[in-house]
Amino acid sequence: MHASEFAHPNADVRMRGFAQRTTVEDALAWVDSAVPEFGKLGVEDVSLLNAARRVLARDVTSRVNVPGFARAMMDGFALVADDTLGATTYNPLPLEVLGTCLPSQAFQGTVSAGSAVRIMTGAPLPEGANAVLPIENAQFDGQRVLVLGEVSPGKHVGQLGEDVRAGDVVARTGQLLRPQDIGMLSSLGFDRAPAIRRPRVRILITGNELLPMGTSPTGFQITDANGPMLAALVTRDGGEPIMGPIVPDDRDAILAALRADADVILVSGGSSVGQEDHVPTLLAEHGELAIHGIAMRPSSPTGMGRLDGRLVFLLPGNPVSCLCAYDFFAGRAIRALGGRDRDWPYRRLRAQLTRKLVSVVGRVDYARMRIDGTTAEPLAISGASVLSSVTRADGFVIVPADGEGFPEGAEVDVYLYE
Amino acid sequence: MHASEFAHPNADVRMRGFAQRTTVEDALAWVDSAVPEFGKLGVEDVSLLNAARRVLARDVTSRVNVPGFARAMMDGFALVADDTLGATTYNPLPLEVLGTCLPSQAFQGTVSAGSAVRIMTGAPLPEGANAVLPIENAQFDGQRVLVLGEVSPGKHVGQLGEDVRAGDVVARTGQLLRPQDIGMLSSLGFDRAPAIRRPRVRILITGNELLPMGTSPTGFQITDANGPMLAALVTRDGGEPIMGPIVPDDRDAILAALRADADVILVSGGSSVGQEDHVPTLLAEHGELAIHGIAMRPSSPTGMGRLDGRLVFLLPGNPVSCLCAYDFFAGRAIRALGGRDRDWPYRRLRAQLTRKLVSVVGRVDYARMRIDGTTAEPLAISGASVLSSVTRADGFVIVPADGEGFPEGAEVDVYLYE
Repeated sequence: MHASEFAHPNADVRMRGFAQRTTVEDALAWVDSAVPEFGKLGVEDVSLLNAARRVLARDVTSRVNVPGFARAMMDGFALVADDTLGATTYNPLPLEVLGTCLPSQAFQGTVSAGSAVRIMTGAPLPEGANAVLPIENAQFDGQRVLVLGEVSPGKHVGQLGEDVRAGDVVARTGQLLRPQDIGMLSSLGFDRAPAIRRPRVRILITGNELLPMGTSPTGFQITDANGPMLAALVTRDGGEPIMGPIVPDDRDAILAALRADADVILVSGGSSVGQEDHVPTLLAEHGELAIHGIAMRPSSPTGMGRLDGRLVFLLPGNPVSCLCAYDFFAGRAIRALGGRDRDWPYRRLRAQLTRKLVSVVGRVDYARMRIDGTTAEPLAISGASVLSSVTRADGFVIVPADGEGFPEGAEVDVYLYE
Repeated sequence: MHASEFAHPNADVRMRGFAQRTTVEDALAWVDSAVPEFGKLGVEDVSLLNAARRVLARDVTSRVNVPGFARAMMDGFALVADDTLGATTYNPLPLEVLGTCLPSQAFQGTVSAGSAVRIMTGAPLPEGANAVLPIENAQFDGQRVLVLGEVSPGKHVGQLGEDVRAGDVVARTGQLLRPQDIGMLSSLGFDRAPAIRRPRVRILITGNELLPMGTSPTGFQITDANGPMLAALVTRDGGEPIMGPIVPDDRDAILAALRADADVILVSGGSSVGQEDHVPTLLAEHGELAIHGIAMRPSSPTGMGRLDGRLVFLLPGNPVSCLCAYDFFAGRAIRALGGRDRDWPYRRLRAQLTRKLVSVVGRVDYARMRIDGTTAEPLAISGASVLSSVTRADGFVIVPADGEGFPEGAEVDVYLYE
């Protein structure tokens, strides 16, 4: 009896291996081409108190000058700079003090040759004055000040518009708002910033064997790890996670969930080629299954496509594969959609392998590492699919498809989990 | 007339320069000694959906085995491994298929020599089976399966407790919760994690010249930049910012605000040695003014101390100095208090200076840089105190106190703003 005698009944066609696998490179290219251009998601005004790390949707132009008036940049005496010519500690020059300038208050009076006004940092420069003598170079008896050094015109004076001029662009489309940008926008009178709307990312967990977060695993059921993990990843990448209940292995239920409101849908589970793996078929029937099966380990059953204008990523149910597939493809799409850098947000560390790292030509490997100083120890390959292999790891190394791995002692780039 | 003829009336003692400045090194040492030991803030249970980047307050131990049963790690056939001995595509060995094992369901029946059960990834291994033959190495006609390759005992089977055993510590005190840690905790049945409470950081902005966020600067008043900027910095560093209204330059009002509930108080404005700078005096009178005046530029008027058990940082009102003083001292304290790494969260880039960077021995300089590839261009020193000097910058270089700067072309570490 020969194997060829066994026909494949149609009913079982779906229970097979992947006919062919797409390269990681081609899958990344598909992601990049599938993400609509910048600005597709539209703009929302967010409070400056919630604007940190949001992406600016348009240039922001100042309507005001900052400062809006010439002001003292140090505590001291506002005066006419020429009055200080020749002043030293051995040749102190006296000036009559007319009064005090406090911040936010206009000084009633004019400084002229031979006079000065005591001034606090931030106070408006009184009329007639063109420089500030720092308190360190002055001696004051309550009525007269002795000038102990020279100052040039404009010295220690913040000029009108020195920081920002009305009409200046102070923050640019596409930039990430940092704390100082938020401070700047506030100083100009804004209390909101126009940000790119965050991509709404629906997390669709399917599998009859799964119990929801907060339930102890029992019998032959396991508790979902991927939903909460993906929610944290989506948030990190600037998306807004939307989590529904776990969806049973049922075509109609899955199709309804795939059609719920979202910009991106992450499906975890039911994405391979087994009997209960409805999702690829549904996507192919009702939308586009662009890629299914990728030459990488783990995560080879990953798929991606479109349905009703939203991007759909089929992530393997195994948590390690789910994490890896998210990081390679879905996270990239979410970051790009939100106007962020497509590349991994992980810091890189150059480290030396403590053991050789074996891979197979034609497949990208995601090898988890423990870091000790600048050495990287590959975690044991057995049990590669268990979640503890990534919770025990500090980062990972990518073995490219065109290599067979790295020898012991090789210098590699480790991407550090955070 | 000689300068020494001028006496300093008591009323003016406070309007002077700093008598002496503390070194940055000593100020950092004070911060480190002032932050109470780990765990001072206590523990709060946070939902796993909000636990990303929180710091774990105690070890978490699993109460369950994961998986809680032996299960298939691939789609294929559960069988007795010995039945595959000698099987190849040229010597296919037939087995009777007893039925199908689906995830979460117990199979009613026992596999024995000569029989197999079709099995899906994640399904419990049926009684009697000890290995899974992958679908790729099998041909199936609906009744019998042809084995096309050998499998060894245990192959493609996830053993009970292979990922986590009951009693294992799966996450450790002090670690930052990453997405995979959150997934792991969920898979064990948890829905909350014990996190160190976030430090409550009161942001106290004082100054009669200041208008609150959302108000256009007008007349001789300026709009607060520091409150929203500090709120973003505090959030970044794992603290919980508490913002009240702007406090007038009034001793009683400031003292009341200093005594409001908080773990750390950041005071911006009124912190120098001028006439309206009440805060250092208040802190000295009612608590401890440990340090006031630091040998650095900008931010030399920075102070720090304690009041009623809380840490108080006096940050200069100038926004650039405020940012710099926060980053050097207050941020460090907030991160340490929350159990985080004390060091700056900024990524470092090794870059080459396009121009020389001049500093003064005895003072630490915070020099803002524009980055182009791997070159760093120091931003113009004039207008060093304007906020646009940090919004236009990509990062900064620290010039240590014992140096006079760096020559053109020098390799420097740039800390990248984010």
